[in-house]
Amino acid sequence: MRTSPLLEQLMDALRCLPGVGPKSAQRMAFSLLQRNRQGGLQLADVLGKAMTEIGHCRDCRTFTEEDVCAICDNPRRLENGQICVVESPADIMAVEATGQFSGRYFVLMGHLSPLDGIGPSDIGLDVLEYRLQNEPIAELILATNPTVEGEATAHFIAELCQAYQVPATRIAHGVPVGGELELVDGTTLSHSLAGRQKLY
Amino acid sequence: MRTSPLLEQLMDALRCLPGVGPKSAQRMAFSLLQRNRQGGLQLADVLGKAMTEIGHCRDCRTFTEEDVCAICDNPRRLENGQICVVESPADIMAVEATGQFSGRYFVLMGHLSPLDGIGPSDIGLDVLEYRLQNEPIAELILATNPTVEGEATAHFIAELCQAYQVPATRIAHGVPVGGELELVDGTTLSHSLAGRQKLY
Ligand SMILES: [Zn+2]
Ligand SMILES: [Zn+2]
Repeated sequence: MRTSPLLEQLMDALRCLPGVGPKSAQRMAFSLLQRNRQGGLQLADVLGKAMTEIGHCRDCRTFTEEDVCAICDNPRRLENGQICVVESPADIMAVEATGQFSGRYFVLMGHLSPLDGIGPSDIGLDVLEYRLQNEPIAELILATNPTVEGEATAHFIAELCQAYQVPATRIAHGVPVGGELELVDGTTLSHSLAGRQKLY
Repeated sequence: MRTSPLLEQLMDALRCLPGVGPKSAQRMAFSLLQRNRQGGLQLADVLGKAMTEIGHCRDCRTFTEEDVCAICDNPRRLENGQICVVESPADIMAVEATGQFSGRYFVLMGHLSPLDGIGPSDIGLDVLEYRLQNEPIAELILATNPTVEGEATAHFIAELCQAYQVPATRIAHGVPVGGELELVDGTTLSHSLAGRQKLY
């Protein structure tokens, strides 16, 4: 729009959001300018802070602005000695929403993908190995996605568990094969947790 | 997500964008944090600036960070004496994209809607009336949306034109009745401009 270079910049910048094309970027920019400048300013402020301050939990690797996240820092989540391994922070939210799990998490932030050059240390398996070696872990629940890569990653971690004599389980295939964990409904995910199978 | 209050704030703040619910807000936040923090910082910066600095053109009311927008400020757009009246800045972009119009614009930023308490001065008709009175205007092209409110607004403005002896035309109904101007394809909009009818 020749009338405002700044508005053009805003529409361009909004396209860094997933699923936002030129038409929705325009609708978003106009909507904020016309009806919600306070909301826009608030978003600008929080977004800047979040991009700068949010890092990864030292223990579980999930997103947090603290050194250690609130779940890892909670002594009651340590009691049952369970650690649930997931691919992404969104999966933590999905598992938490079932109310069926009271242990801690470990977030891979991805999965093994040799063709893309993503190896064990890229998904934090060095950190996880250190924990397997040094912490009393009663059970490692492998809740990676039921995809080819997720399965391969789960089996790789199961072998790591075997090396350190830590019991490893895989969540049951109540979740649809080929799907994504964070899109599964709570009931299915509960069944899936309850029916987990011992791998080692 | 109990692990990061700042992340929760970010997901809340993203919902000020039209069409963004809890699931897409979460996907957006994770995507920026995991893959594009630079893009997120850039968006925060541009968004803050845009919300603060973008105002309305003194002459045509469209969005601009200048006092007068680049179209109103261009002497060549003054030559044919035409002013195209549209409901929103998005409509300017749609008309510009046809390449069929070289005059100036006037943006109502809405339409008359007595039931919602939106009267003539809320859509800048006092400013427009001042221009009708004081500028040599060859033709006012009424390009409000082909909706009930858009038609009513066009007829109200046509009466204003009659009072000041300024020729007013209405774009042809090549555009689908009940639709929104900014969603119409360029060819249809070109036909619609070419087939405009004299109202007074
Ligand atoms: Zn943690
Ligand atoms: Zn202007």
